[in-house]
Amino acid sequence: MPLIVQKYGGSSVADSDRLRMVARRIAATREAGHDVAIVVSAMGDTTDELLQLARGVSSEPVARELDMLLTAGERISTSLLAMALHELGHEAASFTGVQAGLRTDQAFGDARILDVQPARIADAIAAGVIPIVAGFQGGNDDEDVTTLGRGGSDTTAVALAAALGAEVCEICTDVDGLYTADPRVVPHAQRLPYLSTEEALELTAHGAKVLHRRSVEIARRHGVSLHVRSSFGETEGTWISDDPVATALAADPLSSDPHASVHQHADLEESPVEQPIISGVTHTDDQSMLTVVGAPDVPGTAAAIFAVITGAVATVDMVGQTHTAADTGLIDFSFALPMEDATRAAKALQREQDRLGFATLTLTDDVGKVSVVGDGMRSTPQVSAQLFEALSAEGITVHLIAQSEIRLSVVVPLEQLEHATRVLHGAFGLDAVELAVVHGEAAA
Amino acid sequence: MPLIVQKYGGSSVADSDRLRMVARRIAATREAGHDVAIVVSAMGDTTDELLQLARGVSSEPVARELDMLLTAGERISTSLLAMALHELGHEAASFTGVQAGLRTDQAFGDARILDVQPARIADAIAAGVIPIVAGFQGGNDDEDVTTLGRGGSDTTAVALAAALGAEVCEICTDVDGLYTADPRVVPHAQRLPYLSTEEALELTAHGAKVLHRRSVEIARRHGVSLHVRSSFGETEGTWISDDPVATALAADPLSSDPHASVHQHADLEESPVEQPIISGVTHTDDQSMLTVVGAPDVPGTAAAIFAVITGAVATVDMVGQTHTAADTGLIDFSFALPMEDATRAAKALQREQDRLGFATLTLTDDVGKVSVVGDGMRSTPQVSAQLFEALSAEGITVHLIAQSEIRLSVVVPLEQLEHATRVLHGAFGLDAVELAVVHGEAAA
Repeated sequence: MPLIVQKYGGSSVADSDRLRMVARRIAATREAGHDVAIVVSAMGDTTDELLQLARGVSSEPVARELDMLLTAGERISTSLLAMALHELGHEAASFTGVQAGLRTDQAFGDARILDVQPARIADAIAAGVIPIVAGFQGGNDDEDVTTLGRGGSDTTAVALAAALGAEVCEICTDVDGLYTADPRVVPHAQRLPYLSTEEALELTAHGAKVLHRRSVEIARRHGVSLHVRSSFGETEGTWISDDPVATALAADPLSSDPHASVHQHADLEESPVEQPIISGVTHTDDQSMLTVVGAPDVPGTAAAIFAVITGAVATVDMVGQTHTAADTGLIDFSFALPMEDATRAAKALQREQDRLGFATLTLTDDVGKVSVVGDGMRSTPQVSAQLFEALSAEGITVHLIAQSEIRLSVVVPLEQLEHATRVLHGAFGLDAVELAVVHGEAAA
Repeated sequence: MPLIVQKYGGSSVADSDRLRMVARRIAATREAGHDVAIVVSAMGDTTDELLQLARGVSSEPVARELDMLLTAGERISTSLLAMALHELGHEAASFTGVQAGLRTDQAFGDARILDVQPARIADAIAAGVIPIVAGFQGGNDDEDVTTLGRGGSDTTAVALAAALGAEVCEICTDVDGLYTADPRVVPHAQRLPYLSTEEALELTAHGAKVLHRRSVEIARRHGVSLHVRSSFGETEGTWISDDPVATALAADPLSSDPHASVHQHADLEESPVEQPIISGVTHTDDQSMLTVVGAPDVPGTAAAIFAVITGAVATVDMVGQTHTAADTGLIDFSFALPMEDATRAAKALQREQDRLGFATLTLTDDVGKVSVVGDGMRSTPQVSAQLFEALSAEGITVHLIAQSEIRLSVVVPLEQLEHATRVLHGAFGLDAVELAVVHGEAAA
């Protein structure tokens, strides 16, 4: 039987009513003739409550112990969900990350999955038992428990789907898919029926919160088809896949012959009128802008400043330079970074101020980043012109620009961020006729 | 360094204040030059809260899943305690039952420990790390998590102490030891400085709730000295041991030469004036009395009735028979049993009523059991006479009697239970001059 891996986030199992609803949904999937393996996050606010307990006894909890503590959360949600399935007459059994064969590196709190050896899960499925696997956790070679960091349950689900050769990994959450923009900001946002993994990577890396970038990376590497959809109800959500059959199913979910609809989908792709260049617009306000003011405009300055910053923080997404007014021989450099990184970079620069020879540093978090993402950008060089035209017509200032093959991001003043998002959504033809009605859940 | 295993019950770690107090006590033990290994129960009401969650999704939760659920409790308490110790500058690490090497049988919910292979715990101690072991849990050969049932954390502590060759296993709780009677019922009860394991077995089996009978059994079998004492403060509690050195230390904790005080203790034992015949009086109201009324007084009736009852329930502690008034050729049999067992036994008897030929059954839980326990009973046959005299002088009815080598139990009307307890406590010379001031915690 075809195997479906379903992942349910924390708010989908927040109380016993929702747990029972999720159990009914799983039972329905099983009764419809699918094998299923389930991955669950901790219930609702459990993780926050456990963190609060930790803060009650320690100002800076040890990472190993924090992982031991937090993994109690999925122990509770998985066992309760297994009980709820038994109550519906289905055999089910909960498994910790270790029991499910998730081997990780040693990095407590942010461990990477090294491999998945899901023998017990495969055995359970073969025996007609529904396995309920704890998301977000694994075990290292010291037989200690580890957690996978942000988006960990999504990561578990995709890695398990890859190891089990599942047909699809459903990320079940309390929104019904990925949207062309955040519907709370852009009321005319539309649900995206499908995305390439590359588009999904750019969207999740630059503001889309429904699922985590890491899980998309694993899905891309192992060829797992993702389906982001609502935990409650049967509506189709967003398919993320580079597999034409899966995306075709997404384009025409009612078709009983996937290959027929592949053909139809291929037709669509050849028709640029039907296929928008831009798939979505994301925005994020977690950016700060660090500016090195009045550096000497001589060869090597930029390289020296860069070396200091990249020594202090992992990555710098966006950078710009401006010649100071008049011919003073000075130059300014600006960097967009998450606030924590920006503070660390500023400290590193200050320590080297004498050597680098700049005048001052300015640091502001009154900025935001808006990005447009779409596979169609590859063949459409005029996207940047269109973007600047649209923003400038609305009087929106652009501080910095960054570009990948399929993404264009701009840093704008924070108070113009949401307006800029709406403007670009409209300018690239993404506005729906009807208003979107959704509510948000962050990736767990 | 001599190793001390300390077990802390749920109410001793019920909140972050208490967790920090326990951490300070452990740190003090360590700093006084002892190696320590710690066993902890789940915090306060955690287990009840988890059970309530289970009832929210299932009318009859599966045992395997219930164990997965409940073991979340010790994960939380152990990791928090390890964090609290780090905060005090001590290296500490939490370990699940599985990580600590507690291998059990397959009986979810009431598993027996098969063996303890505490390599990781011994390694931690050798490395100067304080191991914090989850009580109440282990793992079976299927790599599933199991729980040990009532008194499970005590059991874990004693089994671990045996496996590590600890000098003593301290059962730290919120009472300061075992008493000659329950101080809530007998205000003049006194703390017992020491008990033989056999006395402790009888007391814990017949009403004393401070620790569980199973842990005493393991301590007895493996020669582990137990010390039941308060989690907070340094007062000596009750030593339970058959080792003369340990009991001598208990008799004279200030002595720096245990063998000197062994001698002193031996002197005491030879002096019956100093050594009370009875160590303690326990009472319990969890008894019911089942009476088979009007059975034919012919050979084989008693055996047939017994066979039916012992086929239905595990053990029958107490039994009595009465000839019905006048020479009717009929006889009554009474049995004292826990209510659940009594109900099951009554059903079994009813099914066989025609064959057994009795008239009716009566079942009442308006009874209680009071027991006197003491090693001195072996050499003092007049204990039963003294007991009946004391009870009869106070007009207390005795329904049933049972006796072991060092225990005498009577079933009395429930409304006379506490009075009977006080009467016997006084009659055997156990009343202290001053009132006891304690508060109770059940074994966890």
